[in-house]
Amino acid sequence: MTSQHIVKSFDEQLNKLDNTIAEMGGLAEHQLAEAIDALVRRDVEKAAAVAAADIRIDRLESIVDQNAVALLALRQPMATDLRMVISALKTSGIIERIGDYAKNVAKRTLVLAELPPVPPGASIARLGALAQRMFKDVLDAYSARDVEKADLVRLRDKEVDALYTSIFRELLTYMMEDPRNITPCTHLLFIAKNMERVGDHATNIAENIHYMVRGEVFSEERPKSDESAFAVVTPGLPAGAKEG
Amino acid sequence: MTSQHIVKSFDEQLNKLDNTIAEMGGLAEHQLAEAIDALVRRDVEKAAAVAAADIRIDRLESIVDQNAVALLALRQPMATDLRMVISALKTSGIIERIGDYAKNVAKRTLVLAELPPVPPGASIARLGALAQRMFKDVLDAYSARDVEKADLVRLRDKEVDALYTSIFRELLTYMMEDPRNITPCTHLLFIAKNMERVGDHATNIAENIHYMVRGEVFSEERPKSDESAFAVVTPGLPAGAKEG
Repeated sequence: MTSQHIVKSFDEQLNKLDNTIAEMGGLAEHQLAEAIDALVRRDVEKAAAVAAADIRIDRLESIVDQNAVALLALRQPMATDLRMVISALKTSGIIERIGDYAKNVAKRTLVLAELPPVPPGASIARLGALAQRMFKDVLDAYSARDVEKADLVRLRDKEVDALYTSIFRELLTYMMEDPRNITPCTHLLFIAKNMERVGDHATNIAENIHYMVRGEVFSEERPKSDESAFAVVTPGLPAGAKEG
Repeated sequence: MTSQHIVKSFDEQLNKLDNTIAEMGGLAEHQLAEAIDALVRRDVEKAAAVAAADIRIDRLESIVDQNAVALLALRQPMATDLRMVISALKTSGIIERIGDYAKNVAKRTLVLAELPPVPPGASIARLGALAQRMFKDVLDAYSARDVEKADLVRLRDKEVDALYTSIFRELLTYMMEDPRNITPCTHLLFIAKNMERVGDHATNIAENIHYMVRGEVFSEERPKSDESAFAVVTPGLPAGAKEG
């Protein structure tokens, strides 16, 4: 970073932090939408473009980090302002992870495009859309400092988890039907897991909003449950016939 | 938090932050070792104990966060001290994630113990041991502020990635051989992925050490490659016969 001779106003610096988070979030959300679209359409060019563009999110994360640290060092913010800087640091880390998930989906799409298509594409697109909407809404809540909206996003994570668990079972069933489905379904499993993680991370951002606005920290236990860790699917039985 | 009437010395507060990180890291490392051991021995009680103990790591993360924010607010640290506080915040978040991976391995072990054993247990134990050693060494490097040691840990991530990719292929091959292997091998796939992520996170801690000690930030592109995202395994061919 070049040394800065013109000292900006404190509010201006805080605004800049907010704007960079918004830009980063918008980009990650776009990447996620593009990755899902490329997956559904088996669009190799689009997938390659998503994978290549992830570095832009990483760069924005560095900018947030540098600005946040500069703010802490030069301005020594207190109370709400301090919480805003801490939340920006944490949230930029989360958005960067979401960008990584989009990139990973894109990379797997490049492989999937060369394999025979498998049916659960539609459910995964629905899961992706759910996770993406959670992420979009939590970014809006972050910009607006809207705790109620953040809480509503948090509640929706259960929906994502439930759909993920059902896709997990569905994919295992397809694998059992035909060994040629195993490689594509495994990549789809990881893609579905990535989407489920986006839901978790949207929840984490919702918790950052609480902390930023109200200074509250959530208790460690949260009502999240990816039940797929307990899933058992048995060959010969229809999906969901056996409880995990 | 209760309000604190006795103002501790600045160094004392920084030391406390370091000690909590060390305690948290030690606990997560222990959890990881126990989770791998429970997996290998199909020890359900141990796995349940690991899953239940994760909350202790989450609580330590909250303590690190609270202490770090208190330090920033009350002490307004500069230069190295500021970087130390920022690194503690970031590192505690990473250790918490590693705790989550151990917990997830434990939960899947509970399911695996009820399914017929599948062969790749030994390779996964090796992968777990590799990742765990990386994590242990990077925690030592963190305590000692040892940048050279951190760099050596960083280089070892390639080994973890390579072993993970070979396990990924191996597991897909077992799935293709017998549909009854599909459910257990899928859980093992996610377990292996968790171990691979531990390696990535050890690398992230190594980068935090660089930043803390030298103020350097790594460029966005790092020499990491989980090639499994590109893996294709074809039924009827031995594992590794086809390049992904």
